[in-house]
Amino acid sequence: MGMVGGGPGAFIGAIHRVAAQLDGQIELVGGAFSSDPGKSRDTGTALFLDPTRVYGSYTEMMEKESALPADRRMDLVSIVTPNHLHFEPARLAMESGFHVVLDKPIAFSLEEALRLKEISEKTKRLCCLTHTYAGYPMVKEARYQVAAGHLGAIRKVYVEYPQGWLSNALEKEENKQASWRTDPARSGIAGCMGDIGTHAFHLAEYVSGLKVSHLCAELGTFVKGRRLDDDGAVLLRFNNGATGVLMATQVAAGEENNIRIRVYGEKGGLEWQQQDNNTLLLKWPDRPAQACRAGAAYLSPSSLHNSRTPSGHPEGYLEAFANHYRNFALTLQAMMPNEKPTAEWLDFPTIDDGIRGMAFIENVVRSASSETKFIPFETVVPV
Amino acid sequence: MGMVGGGPGAFIGAIHRVAAQLDGQIELVGGAFSSDPGKSRDTGTALFLDPTRVYGSYTEMMEKESALPADRRMDLVSIVTPNHLHFEPARLAMESGFHVVLDKPIAFSLEEALRLKEISEKTKRLCCLTHTYAGYPMVKEARYQVAAGHLGAIRKVYVEYPQGWLSNALEKEENKQASWRTDPARSGIAGCMGDIGTHAFHLAEYVSGLKVSHLCAELGTFVKGRRLDDDGAVLLRFNNGATGVLMATQVAAGEENNIRIRVYGEKGGLEWQQQDNNTLLLKWPDRPAQACRAGAAYLSPSSLHNSRTPSGHPEGYLEAFANHYRNFALTLQAMMPNEKPTAEWLDFPTIDDGIRGMAFIENVVRSASSETKFIPFETVVPV
Amino acid sequence: MGMVGGGPGAFIGAIHRVAAQLDGQIELVGGAFSSDPGKSRDTGTALFLDPTRVYGSYTEMMEKESALPADRRMDLVSIVTPNHLHFEPARLAMESGFHVVLDKPIAFSLEEALRLKEISEKTKRLCCLTHTYAGYPMVKEARYQVAAGHLGAIRKVYVEYPQGWLSNALEKEENKQASWRTDPARSGIAGCMGDIGTHAFHLAEYVSGLKVSHLCAELGTFVKGRRLDDDGAVLLRFNNGATGVLMATQVAAGEENNIRIRVYGEKGGLEWQQQDNNTLLLKWPDRPAQACRAGAAYLSPSSLHNSRTPSGHPEGYLEAFANHYRNFALTLQAMMPNEKPTAEWLDFPTIDDGIRGMAFIENVVRSASSETKFIPFETVVPV
Amino acid sequence: MGMVGGGPGAFIGAIHRVAAQLDGQIELVGGAFSSDPGKSRDTGTALFLDPTRVYGSYTEMMEKESALPADRRMDLVSIVTPNHLHFEPARLAMESGFHVVLDKPIAFSLEEALRLKEISEKTKRLCCLTHTYAGYPMVKEARYQVAAGHLGAIRKVYVEYPQGWLSNALEKEENKQASWRTDPARSGIAGCMGDIGTHAFHLAEYVSGLKVSHLCAELGTFVKGRRLDDDGAVLLRFNNGATGVLMATQVAAGEENNIRIRVYGEKGGLEWQQQDNNTLLLKWPDRPAQACRAGAAYLSPSSLHNSRTPSGHPEGYLEAFANHYRNFALTLQAMMPNEKPTAEWLDFPTIDDGIRGMAFIENVVRSASSETKFIPFETVVPV
Repeated sequence: MGMVGGGPGAFIGAIHRVAAQLDGQIELVGGAFSSDPGKSRDTGTALFLDPTRVYGSYTEMMEKESALPADRRMDLVSIVTPNHLHFEPARLAMESGFHVVLDKPIAFSLEEALRLKEISEKTKRLCCLTHTYAGYPMVKEARYQVAAGHLGAIRKVYVEYPQGWLSNALEKEENKQASWRTDPARSGIAGCMGDIGTHAFHLAEYVSGLKVSHLCAELGTFVKGRRLDDDGAVLLRFNNGATGVLMATQVAAGEENNIRIRVYGEKGGLEWQQQDNNTLLLKWPDRPAQACRAGAAYLSPSSLHNSRTPSGHPEGYLEAFANHYRNFALTLQAMMPNEKPTAEWLDFPTIDDGIRGMAFIENVVRSASSETKFIPFETVVPV
Repeated sequence: MGMVGGGPGAFIGAIHRVAAQLDGQIELVGGAFSSDPGKSRDTGTALFLDPTRVYGSYTEMMEKESALPADRRMDLVSIVTPNHLHFEPARLAMESGFHVVLDKPIAFSLEEALRLKEISEKTKRLCCLTHTYAGYPMVKEARYQVAAGHLGAIRKVYVEYPQGWLSNALEKEENKQASWRTDPARSGIAGCMGDIGTHAFHLAEYVSGLKVSHLCAELGTFVKGRRLDDDGAVLLRFNNGATGVLMATQVAAGEENNIRIRVYGEKGGLEWQQQDNNTLLLKWPDRPAQACRAGAAYLSPSSLHNSRTPSGHPEGYLEAFANHYRNFALTLQAMMPNEKPTAEWLDFPTIDDGIRGMAFIENVVRSASSETKFIPFETVVPV
Repeated sequence: MGMVGGGPGAFIGAIHRVAAQLDGQIELVGGAFSSDPGKSRDTGTALFLDPTRVYGSYTEMMEKESALPADRRMDLVSIVTPNHLHFEPARLAMESGFHVVLDKPIAFSLEEALRLKEISEKTKRLCCLTHTYAGYPMVKEARYQVAAGHLGAIRKVYVEYPQGWLSNALEKEENKQASWRTDPARSGIAGCMGDIGTHAFHLAEYVSGLKVSHLCAELGTFVKGRRLDDDGAVLLRFNNGATGVLMATQVAAGEENNIRIRVYGEKGGLEWQQQDNNTLLLKWPDRPAQACRAGAAYLSPSSLHNSRTPSGHPEGYLEAFANHYRNFALTLQAMMPNEKPTAEWLDFPTIDDGIRGMAFIENVVRSASSETKFIPFETVVPV
Repeated sequence: MGMVGGGPGAFIGAIHRVAAQLDGQIELVGGAFSSDPGKSRDTGTALFLDPTRVYGSYTEMMEKESALPADRRMDLVSIVTPNHLHFEPARLAMESGFHVVLDKPIAFSLEEALRLKEISEKTKRLCCLTHTYAGYPMVKEARYQVAAGHLGAIRKVYVEYPQGWLSNALEKEENKQASWRTDPARSGIAGCMGDIGTHAFHLAEYVSGLKVSHLCAELGTFVKGRRLDDDGAVLLRFNNGATGVLMATQVAAGEENNIRIRVYGEKGGLEWQQQDNNTLLLKWPDRPAQACRAGAAYLSPSSLHNSRTPSGHPEGYLEAFANHYRNFALTLQAMMPNEKPTAEWLDFPTIDDGIRGMAFIENVVRSASSETKFIPFETVVPV
């Protein structure tokens, strides 16, 4: 694997590196870690990489790596740059023959996302999009419980992602993370909704197995001078008649990253939150609520496939992240000799999820500036 | 104290009786417990009441009791009937010289609520409205923390009341509680929003100290054949620029009565939920979250005034309910010799809260049927 | 009901009064609230009692009340004085024809407890001992789950009662509660173990349905100058071969009153703690743990009989306390017309529980001063 | 790094491999994974290892690896075999020039542990012992809070490790884990106490900074036919006068691996449990309890050094395990150029911890079979 981005000061690059290599299925062999060749080199050295495979730019990396013999060159490229630098490296990677892992949201705009899909289909290269939370074993179990019909027809979906780290104008204090996330030129048309709203949106559709059909959004910017939304709430209507609420905020002072989902059907409900990620609560009208625990033998194959430790020994964020990488790698390995990947292996977010994520951003922003209450959820670029 | 309603099969009547008498400040001496005189009598007997003060109708009760000498007659009347039977007994009680305790929502319509206020002012009789959750010691503490400015200027208010008991058409199964609550003739224009949405709304305004200025509502009815909403979500705007979300549902299968509020300001946040009612979480961006516990010496006078047990010995719903009765009684006792009730004693919900509750219902219903996103929160009856 | 003790500054007297009257089955009509007649009178006035039934001593109360006509005099006497003042009032009450409620531990010594039993049998008067925690609905459910065999044969019992309020020498600061509890002349031969160890011991035997057969105790006194133990731990052996641990301490700085019990059998385990008193966790080796909730329809009759509110509306300490009074009152009422009280009504702690409590204290103290590891649990006074 | 053990069916070998490599500081280059050369080879292949460095025995591995040039050969050896196969590989590894990572307990007997220390001192090779729980960031914080004096002089230490997986005779069902752990020939003189009691013991001494001076133990075997203890409880006395209780059991049916510690001092208390491993509770007598969260900026350097993700993104068991490997690697790296490792790097369990662990086992077993209550904690082999 090669990496684009993830140089000094980047948070998510280091996460990707640990996650990719956690299960011994993927090895980081090179990268273009920074647009500054010196910084890229320093990062490569710190990672004990072969200096000849540490590049000054992603274009150089794609060119040189694709020229290597098949058994030596990278199989895939992981792109962990800010949003405005997703499309070009991803396009070039696929066109150079590499599979791609992309951090979310998939691109800078819905239009870019749709184009990535075309390129992927043309080049027959796959993309994995790291919507981390869908990688948790107990989120897999939640999805399974809904899909198996244990909750009955779904009526309500509540999803929320409260953060507090942008309660102040951090972007004015040399904070690299805050800086690009609040900059329309690098982040896109949404701030909070692009950064964490898309996670919540993906989780809602992933667990419920439903698609949002209409939404009514309200966005806000609480910190003076901030150029993008730092808060929002969205009323949701789903394609089966269910309704729901999505709340995402980065100004809930004192909150960390406690993404949480609750789903209720005619026969029961479920609740999962990152802060207690190894537990899935199942709630029933006529019998005691159950606390399902990661790694327990009674779980679905899908959940167990994504656990590494015995029940009670907690796994967390890095392992959830690693599950996407592992499933992607298993799928790619199976495809090479033309085998069929299992349903468990194919269970990673794809370009289609990326397209819905970008559509979510664009629809939310459109709704937020509209006087009309509900608007339909569109997945094509308006002409 | 005399009671109107609360006969066989009523749930809330028994709660009111325990709550009223818990602290030895109020004694139930009579009542008109049912429109069926036999049932009223049976209830009186079961309660060891003097049979001469158990009445066949509330009109008889008001007439006979007001004719008793001052030192023997009731001081106040507690009205625990369904919503359509709030106004007339309350009017008659005040005009007969009695103070009044009313179960929520205060009346059948905003218009009735506004008229009750006029009558109260004319007769100089007081009303206490039992928004239970505002009676919890740790809700008092939450209100104090906001009022004292510890959280800074408030930005976000999330309040929710998920229930699951109406997931099925209970109203078709001889369930007295479900029956009147889903009947427009007895409940009013809203179901879920009137029954529990008003509690959530009151809690949000009580804790935050803010007033809702605009709202955008979505109501739903998930159970076939049901005549009123059993679910809803409301986007809120407050008079200081804060925003929020109110969620109330009675079809969250498996949920009990876990009303919960979260408030975030510029400097910190708080969280309280009924399921862990003796704890108030305070969350800070720069130091560990704190778990304040009911009865602890470090709490505000307002919170401590509403506790009866040492820290760690849990109090609950009945005690929260009793706090409203006790504070109302202390206020009335203080007013008799023309003393001034303390701020702690005056801390019970009043007709003004009832008016806002009815306005909430009417605004929510109006918004839910509107194509426009946000509407202003009106507190007068449209001409 | 009449009360002995519970004057100004007493904590437990007020608790008893609320608990006794909560369900409208018992009415406080008089008392000897203090050995100081003026203080007794003041307390009576504050409680709106008939001054002629407020007495200057318990001997006067027993004499005058027993002289009243049957339909006017007290039925029972509640004794809420420190331990050294339990036996004499209880003896006199029973010999004067009154049933008795006693705060725990039942007496000053095992010898007194055994004598109370004789008196009770001779006078045919009943005693109820207020081991509060056995009154919680979910403790009743725990006992039911064990008795029904759902956990299989019991192997382990862990019970603990950590408090922190005696971490400092409060007894030197005019604290009435601390003062008598640390005074051998008023408390008896044990401090912490008598005050809260007996609660934990009762809970362990009540829930498990087992009897302690041997124990190995270690007592400690951490606060300088304190005259009784403020901490202890006891290894337990039960009559069926199960083993366990009892921990009680009053120097766990920062702890409130989080009494907790865990019981494990061959097939499953359970956990209950006061801090989350409306939940009982059932744990299973092969399926998800279950959270049973007070008031839910799936609970045992014994648990439901001891609830007052719908599931999700929390009850607490006062209600648990009230359950003992209510069950005692129902039993007494049933016995008057020679009916048979139900198993649910008879479910209150009795003199036999008091005897075991006193035996626990004496065995623990004996073990603590012994070099031998385990000693048998004796329930007779050594000759 | 090379590995001894960890072939097919081993649980802990895979954990060690992930943990060792998680931070990119250590690379697994070879191993003797099984005493069956074919199985060893299969494991090597599955791990993508160079076949020439996959060995049929650990003796072969030590011999061949130590003959490699310095820049190619292993630096350290990780030994993950059952207890009876710790000493010989560790001895040979150190005498062949390798540093050693050992799974706990360090050896088969105290005598072996003491000899390992001599060999380590003679060969100047270091050992790291993987007491996992001491690797958690919030356990580091707990130790810091005690060491900094925030809790005052320590009075009480409660530590517990309840498991349920050996509630049945799993060792008769071809379960490899159960089989060797209940076999005196492979596990040593203790079962439960050696397997998890030593973890609890280490945690107690690590967090409190105290040493056990006396103990009083009770061991039990609940499953028929089992040859070692599957349950136990130990009363503890510490060298500063504090006392405590250690509970370890493998027959708490329904429990997973919820190791938990509570420590109380004169000024406050703390609580940590694996099930909520990213939280440390600090409890105070006079102010609200605090919930410290992993990764938060307000934590001690020692805690932050052992975190990888921002606050709120949970880390778990693998990361705790990895912390020992990382700190050991950082220490070794610093020592090569004769630099001084930092206090944070040196913070991994050593042979001295292993010696105390083996002493714990031997003292517990001795106490359990003694009639005398407390025995002194001896750390030398009785002559």
